[in-house]
Amino acid sequence: MKEKLLIVKIGGHVIDGEGALEALLDQLADAAGHKILVHGGGKLATDLARRLGMPQRLIDGRRVTDGETLKVVTMVYAGIVNKTIVSGLQARGCNAIGLCGADANLIKARKRAGLYDEYGFVGDIDRVDADRAAKILQEGHVLVMAPITHDGKGQLLNTNADTIAQELAVALCPLFDVQLVYCFEKRGVLQDSDDEHSVISKIGKESLPSLVEQKIIHGGMLPKIENAIAASERGVRSVTIGHWSQLSGLIARKSGTTIGHGHTDGTII
Amino acid sequence: MKEKLLIVKIGGHVIDGEGALEALLDQLADAAGHKILVHGGGKLATDLARRLGMPQRLIDGRRVTDGETLKVVTMVYAGIVNKTIVSGLQARGCNAIGLCGADANLIKARKRAGLYDEYGFVGDIDRVDADRAAKILQEGHVLVMAPITHDGKGQLLNTNADTIAQELAVALCPLFDVQLVYCFEKRGVLQDSDDEHSVISKIGKESLPSLVEQKIIHGGMLPKIENAIAASERGVRSVTIGHWSQLSGLIARKSGTTIGHGHTDGTII
Repeated sequence: MKEKLLIVKIGGHVIDGEGALEALLDQLADAAGHKILVHGGGKLATDLARRLGMPQRLIDGRRVTDGETLKVVTMVYAGIVNKTIVSGLQARGCNAIGLCGADANLIKARKRAGLYDEYGFVGDIDRVDADRAAKILQEGHVLVMAPITHDGKGQLLNTNADTIAQELAVALCPLFDVQLVYCFEKRGVLQDSDDEHSVISKIGKESLPSLVEQKIIHGGMLPKIENAIAASERGVRSVTIGHWSQLSGLIARKSGTTIGHGHTDGTII
Repeated sequence: MKEKLLIVKIGGHVIDGEGALEALLDQLADAAGHKILVHGGGKLATDLARRLGMPQRLIDGRRVTDGETLKVVTMVYAGIVNKTIVSGLQARGCNAIGLCGADANLIKARKRAGLYDEYGFVGDIDRVDADRAAKILQEGHVLVMAPITHDGKGQLLNTNADTIAQELAVALCPLFDVQLVYCFEKRGVLQDSDDEHSVISKIGKESLPSLVEQKIIHGGMLPKIENAIAASERGVRSVTIGHWSQLSGLIARKSGTTIGHGHTDGTII
């Protein structure tokens, strides 16, 4: 039987909120088995860029990573956020090691080209070194991943943290029994967007079209759910999405929305 | 016979100079055996603090690391400088991994207290986990160390990079045949401070008092040399100090000043 691996992705709300990171790390430290925490940088990168007087260009709501912005996100993601998390986990008895994709050549990417070249130094993942990541975990480390990768030719690249979590999960499936948890600012997919208690506990591939038709899943949530279904189809045991303050519940699949191709009939969970 | 380990410390002149880091990494990549690179942050941290409008307090010429300054040095050292070096080494075929002392609990320190409390979040090293560092090296990694440590209770600490290099060297001596190279902006200890070609190639403990008396070694150079002699007495095979542009020569001990208790009679080198 494969050992369990929990991959948790946290975003801005955890990093920016007063006491939120502490509460999240308490719950993560309590979780059993191998662990990877993938983080973004929250508003810190935007704030730092603003304080430095750097105009932030957005195309269709997405940040353009020019050379100076790449420096800012590398400082914030791989620097202060990553090391604050690592020292916080160490204080909780977890032997954390904080890396970005360039470290140990863990995640190789290529700069987005063609139509998407205008987004700047943004990387799409080519390859995750699953054996190397597994070795780090098996040595007893909690891996803390900053969303910066490299192209192997000396160029660092800004890379979506959701995607890093997913690619790590898929790459590590042959070696571990992988559970993926996405923490965000809602309790899950809500039946009624005004009611935080109307969480849909399970979504399968089959139920997606009708949820989209009813506009229960829309906007930025749709690609999240599609990615989660894809991860599940590629071997990830379960993907759960919900509020960071309920991490223990999300891990136990007692909170949040769990997504996967086999979940509607209960065969997988 | 123990395997060779080269520990190179680079400072501000390498990181700030146009093309300097590239030239240094070329030479480091060419060097044989296990390798650790310890870096500072150059003027980047000071520049960033200035751009953010943060007043930098100095006491006796030493930076006071208040809470905001700690964030800046963590971003610069563990973020942009560390990851730029890692991706640069990866591009040269070296499987670099960039860590700070909090990562894998590699270097535990304690906040300077008592008389020195006024320096803020500055750490004095308590313990280097030599076995962990050795494992990372033996897995084929080049270790790139940022000068940030932690106290094990969740506090990151700014720590002198020269000291980190020395403590790593001493801690790894029982496991490796360690050569320590300090790169700075001069070709070595100069007999005549106006003549860059008057490098003293060897200094032993015995010759130090007369060099101090002649004022050939003075100011900030004296603690550097004393530390180098101490490292040599604690088992480091050789300590060489010289210009970063001559790294290959320093490694071969054909350039720079080599320091150690046994060097004057040639027994060690």
